[in-house]
Amino acid sequence: MSVFERAVVIGLGLVGGSVARDLAAHGVEVLAYDSDPSALAAAVREGVVQQALTADLSGVRGVELIVVAVPVDAAAEVLHLVAPYAGAARLITDVGSTKASIVDAAIGAALGDRFVGSHPMAGDHRSGWAASRSGLFRGACVYLCPAIPSSTSATSLASGFWHDLGALPVVLSAARHDQTLAWTSHLPHMLSAALALALARTGLTRDDLGPGGRDVTRLAGSSPDVWTPIARENATAIETALAAAEQEIAHIRGALMRRDEGDLRQRLVAAQAWFLASERNS
Amino acid sequence: MSVFERAVVIGLGLVGGSVARDLAAHGVEVLAYDSDPSALAAAVREGVVQQALTADLSGVRGVELIVVAVPVDAAAEVLHLVAPYAGAARLITDVGSTKASIVDAAIGAALGDRFVGSHPMAGDHRSGWAASRSGLFRGACVYLCPAIPSSTSATSLASGFWHDLGALPVVLSAARHDQTLAWTSHLPHMLSAALALALARTGLTRDDLGPGGRDVTRLAGSSPDVWTPIARENATAIETALAAAEQEIAHIRGALMRRDEGDLRQRLVAAQAWFLASERNS
Repeated sequence: MSVFERAVVIGLGLVGGSVARDLAAHGVEVLAYDSDPSALAAAVREGVVQQALTADLSGVRGVELIVVAVPVDAAAEVLHLVAPYAGAARLITDVGSTKASIVDAAIGAALGDRFVGSHPMAGDHRSGWAASRSGLFRGACVYLCPAIPSSTSATSLASGFWHDLGALPVVLSAARHDQTLAWTSHLPHMLSAALALALARTGLTRDDLGPGGRDVTRLAGSSPDVWTPIARENATAIETALAAAEQEIAHIRGALMRRDEGDLRQRLVAAQAWFLASERNS
Repeated sequence: MSVFERAVVIGLGLVGGSVARDLAAHGVEVLAYDSDPSALAAAVREGVVQQALTADLSGVRGVELIVVAVPVDAAAEVLHLVAPYAGAARLITDVGSTKASIVDAAIGAALGDRFVGSHPMAGDHRSGWAASRSGLFRGACVYLCPAIPSSTSATSLASGFWHDLGALPVVLSAARHDQTLAWTSHLPHMLSAALALALARTGLTRDDLGPGGRDVTRLAGSSPDVWTPIARENATAIETALAAAEQEIAHIRGALMRRDEGDLRQRLVAAQAWFLASERNS
């Protein structure tokens, strides 16, 4: 990571913490801020963060890389806060699961030409500094959404940055990203939560589930602080995806009610065919 | 496994094949039948099965343990087929995901006093002999449903058998089993399939998903041959569970449509609380 000597990571949760660890491992001097003083202190104590910043983020001054890793509803405010001090920054990025609003915020903060939104498809249901780890992004797809598509130098820097962390960058527009992720990520999250809620009403616990049921309910353990803003920001697209899933569930239930074994089998065969089409990467 | 010297396993799929491997590893002489001649030949070639039986199952004669490991809609026929030859059997069991119909079939075949239905909560979306492996049941809960609850000697033999395979036996009635599993296993399976079907319509593949989405869709890869009969046998209970899940999904969608962030957060908090209540075993 010779292109950046100093970087700031704002937010040391699962993703931000893991970015900080990887940067430090690459010899980059890492400055950081987290609203939780104990997380920040732990990151300093563990030697990952060289310098803890104060809440006004004026310490960003002079740094070449800024990574915003806070919940998506807090990211815009952070961008506006760092903007006055970001003169030396060559790349400003984030790690949120929605991209349209943060790209708008970057443009609004006059950071557009140096802002490339990032969404690494890594992590799990755990959250916080304690869950962060080095190598989290190895082999993971990371979506890159340039605020200004013509800013090829920023996009190229972002691509190189994630590549150094072992991730596989894919560039697309913020709108396209949010539309796609409603299906590939936000929908599975909401279904997992819905299943957890249905099971909770029966009095059954996750310990009553086998390995399969545990897989399906794993995302229900995700942080509501992270996921409530994601769902709100991408509400329209997620509504559509949820309605589509409800329809598929109702079709299956209909086949069961009619005891239509042929229809039911056909649906399970189609579901398995979809699964097997990408089994090579399973 | 000193209590059984010879055992028959009928059906060498993921679960039956794994039972056969564990029995052989315990020094039990394993006889087996599978409707797929290549699976049966592979099991003999690999030294797991000592003797391949013919389709009339007359070779069951003289054996002390009979394990029926075929799809749940085929199990009743197998029980009727083996009944005339099962005089020496001290324990007859199965491994299906529904228990009421097989218990009825065992009583109908006059095997009730020696039949204890089993359902090991192990395995994954893969199927067939190639997916079977030794140690599959280690640490797994296995439900035991005696056909005749007063047959304590059969229940005790079944409990000891699974205990020797490393599983943790839990005895309950077949009706209670099927009611519970509709929620803990069959519902997650159907939701995973429904999600796969919804994603299939968008043209997105499983390769477009992150680790979370892949977890939620894993069960969609399960065998339709195994799961269609399970769903049909337990249709009424699964219908109820699916309707409950649809309601939870509709509630989440409603909160999104109203942009009611408080309601949405409350639901995600409740889902996470349910998850965290058993995190110790995650």
